[in-house]
Amino acid sequence: MGMPVEFNTMIVTKGKEQRIEENVFQLTKEGYRIYPIDIPVEVRKTKDGETTGEAIVEKLQLHEKKTVVTYRLVALNSTN
Amino acid sequence: MGMPVEFNTMIVTKGKEQRIEENVFQLTKEGYRIYPIDIPVEVRKTKDGETTGEAIVEKLQLHEKKTVVTYRLVALNSTN
Amino acid sequence: MGMPVEFNTMIVTKGKEQRIEENVFQLTKEGYRIYPIDIPVEVRKTKDGETTGEAIVEKLQLHEKKTVVTYRLVALNSTN
Amino acid sequence: MGMPVEFNTMIVTKGKEQRIEENVFQLTKEGYRIYPIDIPVEVRKTKDGETTGEAIVEKLQLHEKKTVVTYRLVALNSTN
Repeated sequence: MGMPVEFNTMIVTKGKEQRIEENVFQLTKEGYRIYPIDIPVEVRKTKDGETTGEAIVEKLQLHEKKTVVTYRLVALNSTN
Repeated sequence: MGMPVEFNTMIVTKGKEQRIEENVFQLTKEGYRIYPIDIPVEVRKTKDGETTGEAIVEKLQLHEKKTVVTYRLVALNSTN
Repeated sequence: MGMPVEFNTMIVTKGKEQRIEENVFQLTKEGYRIYPIDIPVEVRKTKDGETTGEAIVEKLQLHEKKTVVTYRLVALNSTN
Repeated sequence: MGMPVEFNTMIVTKGKEQRIEENVFQLTKEGYRIYPIDIPVEVRKTKDGETTGEAIVEKLQLHEKKTVVTYRLVALNSTN
């Protein structure tokens, strides 16, 4: 009996993030996932793409085989 | 840089659970924790006490160094 | 980019455990897995079978998409 | 009953790594830790220092409240 979880070291948005506050976004991903909370992580639009910014994950909600990630963008790459 | 998490194999309520529906309870614990979701786990009132029932964890919310566990009680020990 | 891991709350041997000492066994499972270390966990021969005993996991080795679990049997069900 | 684990997103060596092969190093850390396996992670000498290279974690051994991390250095920052 086990619970599958994916440890993620960066946020890959695939353009599906939703802004909920000035710099705060919410992203729903398939499956149960752990993103490090309270630690700066890279944000990318695609897995193999460029880093678009840096974020702090503030909240994780695991429910019904999905994970909702709430993160605050703390830096944005100027080249975009 | 790391995120401390505690893997839990059972729910220890310390009598702090709150009923939110007929058989559904919510419990707030200190720190970031993972309880297996969608798998039957034991429920106890104290760590070393008797099992009071069996539950299915339905939701985990990790936020601000706390974890909110939502679980559905699926069996209750008749000896209580 | 993620690392899939399975959290396990009990040891399911499928009869594949190898004795390495008096009460110590080693079991190789597919994929990366976390079993709670230093905490008593149930041992079963099959996922839906009876509990055959209780063990303390002493070591986990995650390598090449496999996990080697070393555990010490601390109790054996007398009905077997 | 829980097992404390730390999720790490990068390797901080504090200069304590031991070379075991041409580009392969072993590092012992306190406590139980998960580093993403098979995914490139940053290597730093100190938590707040510069990135000194990039590595692939090949093996994790969790035992007696310690974690031994075996990693292969895949890139080295030329500025060092």
